[in-house]
Amino acid sequence: MSELRTVRGMRDIMGPNMRVRDFLVKTAVEVFRLYGYEPLDSPVMELWETLSAKGGEEIETETFKFLDKGKREVGLRFDLTVPLARIVASNPHLPKPFKRYAVGKAWRYDRPQASRYREFMQADVDVIGSASPAADAEVVLVALEFARRTIEDNYVMKINNRKVLKGLIERAGVKDSLAHECFRAIDKLDKIGRDGVVDELKARGIGEDESKFLLDAIKLRGTGLNTLDEFRELLEGSEIGIEGVDELVQMAEIFDESGVGKLTEFDMSLARGLDYYTGAVFEARYLGQPSIGSIAGGGRYDALIERFGGQSTAATGISLGIDRIVDILLFRGLGEKLASQLDVFIAPIKQPMVKYAMKLRNELVKAGISCEVDLMERPLKKLLEQADAKNARFVVIIGARDQEKGEVSLRNMRTKETQQVSPDNLVSIILE
Amino acid sequence: MSELRTVRGMRDIMGPNMRVRDFLVKTAVEVFRLYGYEPLDSPVMELWETLSAKGGEEIETETFKFLDKGKREVGLRFDLTVPLARIVASNPHLPKPFKRYAVGKAWRYDRPQASRYREFMQADVDVIGSASPAADAEVVLVALEFARRTIEDNYVMKINNRKVLKGLIERAGVKDSLAHECFRAIDKLDKIGRDGVVDELKARGIGEDESKFLLDAIKLRGTGLNTLDEFRELLEGSEIGIEGVDELVQMAEIFDESGVGKLTEFDMSLARGLDYYTGAVFEARYLGQPSIGSIAGGGRYDALIERFGGQSTAATGISLGIDRIVDILLFRGLGEKLASQLDVFIAPIKQPMVKYAMKLRNELVKAGISCEVDLMERPLKKLLEQADAKNARFVVIIGARDQEKGEVSLRNMRTKETQQVSPDNLVSIILE
Repeated sequence: MSELRTVRGMRDIMGPNMRVRDFLVKTAVEVFRLYGYEPLDSPVMELWETLSAKGGEEIETETFKFLDKGKREVGLRFDLTVPLARIVASNPHLPKPFKRYAVGKAWRYDRPQASRYREFMQADVDVIGSASPAADAEVVLVALEFARRTIEDNYVMKINNRKVLKGLIERAGVKDSLAHECFRAIDKLDKIGRDGVVDELKARGIGEDESKFLLDAIKLRGTGLNTLDEFRELLEGSEIGIEGVDELVQMAEIFDESGVGKLTEFDMSLARGLDYYTGAVFEARYLGQPSIGSIAGGGRYDALIERFGGQSTAATGISLGIDRIVDILLFRGLGEKLASQLDVFIAPIKQPMVKYAMKLRNELVKAGISCEVDLMERPLKKLLEQADAKNARFVVIIGARDQEKGEVSLRNMRTKETQQVSPDNLVSIILE
Repeated sequence: MSELRTVRGMRDIMGPNMRVRDFLVKTAVEVFRLYGYEPLDSPVMELWETLSAKGGEEIETETFKFLDKGKREVGLRFDLTVPLARIVASNPHLPKPFKRYAVGKAWRYDRPQASRYREFMQADVDVIGSASPAADAEVVLVALEFARRTIEDNYVMKINNRKVLKGLIERAGVKDSLAHECFRAIDKLDKIGRDGVVDELKARGIGEDESKFLLDAIKLRGTGLNTLDEFRELLEGSEIGIEGVDELVQMAEIFDESGVGKLTEFDMSLARGLDYYTGAVFEARYLGQPSIGSIAGGGRYDALIERFGGQSTAATGISLGIDRIVDILLFRGLGEKLASQLDVFIAPIKQPMVKYAMKLRNELVKAGISCEVDLMERPLKKLLEQADAKNARFVVIIGARDQEKGEVSLRNMRTKETQQVSPDNLVSIILE
């Protein structure tokens, strides 16, 4: 056996895994199109000056970075937002709203662990050019419709707003310059617990009273407009905070009206680590087994396009973590349910029948019937096993005597019945 | 406008280009499945020891190669055959025949020029484990069925066999050790002409008489079994040469029987540069404008898996050059014909109607109707223009007064007629 391996943290995908991923990608694209998004593809590689324009300390450590032969620094993209921001920044005349979807791989030097891969697939929708909370609501609706068609249950879309968090920090009496540090610490609540967050905040120079206020506040979570009333009460007096709540109210009304209010939860502890979010933030969490956590996330990033040298442009979007959702559905056994299906396996008896088999197959394929012809010249018994392994519905057996009579044997693999039929009738019998 | 660019030789794909590529990928996958192939995906990156196992002088110069953070040499794959060979070599127990398809990008440091990109997309089918010329014929049939559904006309599949070429070299009296050098020179006939090939052969130490014999022989080309009779005559006395002709005869019989004989041409000048082919070789050429040349190519490579440390394994396959075919179909105007289509554009008059519009949209989407809701709060006239630009079939206008009456205005964008309808009837009217 060969010693050759994949690059560490990356994997080959085939069989059940591949079938589930194909199903998810197909469903995502279907949903994206139904909501009026159009496809965009970009190179897997970007100039380093583009990748680093996004900002954030992890970019340097987590990016697959190298010199190209022209000695320019380049790197593999770590998400699908950077290429989008570059394209929007350098094409100021794109008609707005620019609603694009992208499905593709991205790469990060993460520590390899369960459901975290160094090469992973994402499916993103973004709305460029609309400042309306309706656009934020729309990308969440897209993700929820995708989840309805795939995961079906056991998930919640957590929602918050960076303005709400800013208001909170204002009310807590923390300096504005510490806001991002605060968000980062808050964001770790689920991972490091209340005490952990207190320690992190302390280390960042935030006093005990302020910490206590913040930690009590971020317990606030719940579904629907009532929760947002509590948000409002807490933020009374902070202009930016109330602005954030008003935006969330608009989103909540849309969700309630669309019948998905119960799938959403307003959660004041949701910050999301990336420092470029400016308004709504959202993150879908899977609640079942295996415990995988976040399966989709995004938010509003009205200042990012400018950071890429473009005009100030409103933007919001969400990213579906396809590989993690594959793992959920594999765990539930979808890989087996999606077993590959073959309509017909053609078994020519002896080599001279092969060309006749190939001819028949071409006719079946043109009628949309999937069909495999034996290429191994195996005995019939072996071929029937092979057909079974491929879940073939029918086997067509072509012997020399059959062919002389202008017939083939058609075996129904479900009923195990075999009949002699004219090749001319094969298509109609099988499509029936 | 931003200064940020794509990496040299790579490009963003959107609009008509993207739609044509999506159409080609979808068609390829459809055809591959119909012929019983199953999908396989692998990382874009391979260890350098894997990439270099394939052999060939261009690999060092043409590969995007770099050190990962663990200081291991890695590189972006330059084709989809290398990952396949690695996987087969390290999984000796895969059931045979292993028929896989792969659609993905590959990267090469080519000089950027028309229809040659440093990042390009390929769609491959390969049959692993069958030594039969029927398997070679099958992958060609797959490519021809794809071409029938996409390019439709103006192409030819050129076919030859490395054994035929070996026989030819034997008959010419050239040393076996010079065979690969010979193939390389012959392969350039279309590019550098007869005199160019003579020069190349001379530089490689091949005498004038031998050169003359070879150059006369490689003029031999034509369709069907008659041409192969001429091949046979020329190679009389060379065992390996006759073996190659016999294999081509088996393929020709399958093509003739399948009704695609006229699309194939046996061409003794076809060598294909890669030195790992061991039997049949094939290359589809586009004959129309723009002059793009090769659009698909492949062949039998029975010795490659061993080179990757695996067991000796018969293998054959073909690769479709998706980007080049995109360029052909764009040139023919398919980009416009595939214009994006939207079923419904919903124009809520004033912000309070947005949530109602979103609700309606969710119902339409569930019924499979594609639908966009205005997110820009523009005046109605602008919205109708936007709906037109998106090729919307219908516009639904929601005013406050309509809503009170439990109605919406439905405008048919083809007939320009508007009617008042109940939202409950929207789905059925639009699906009609």
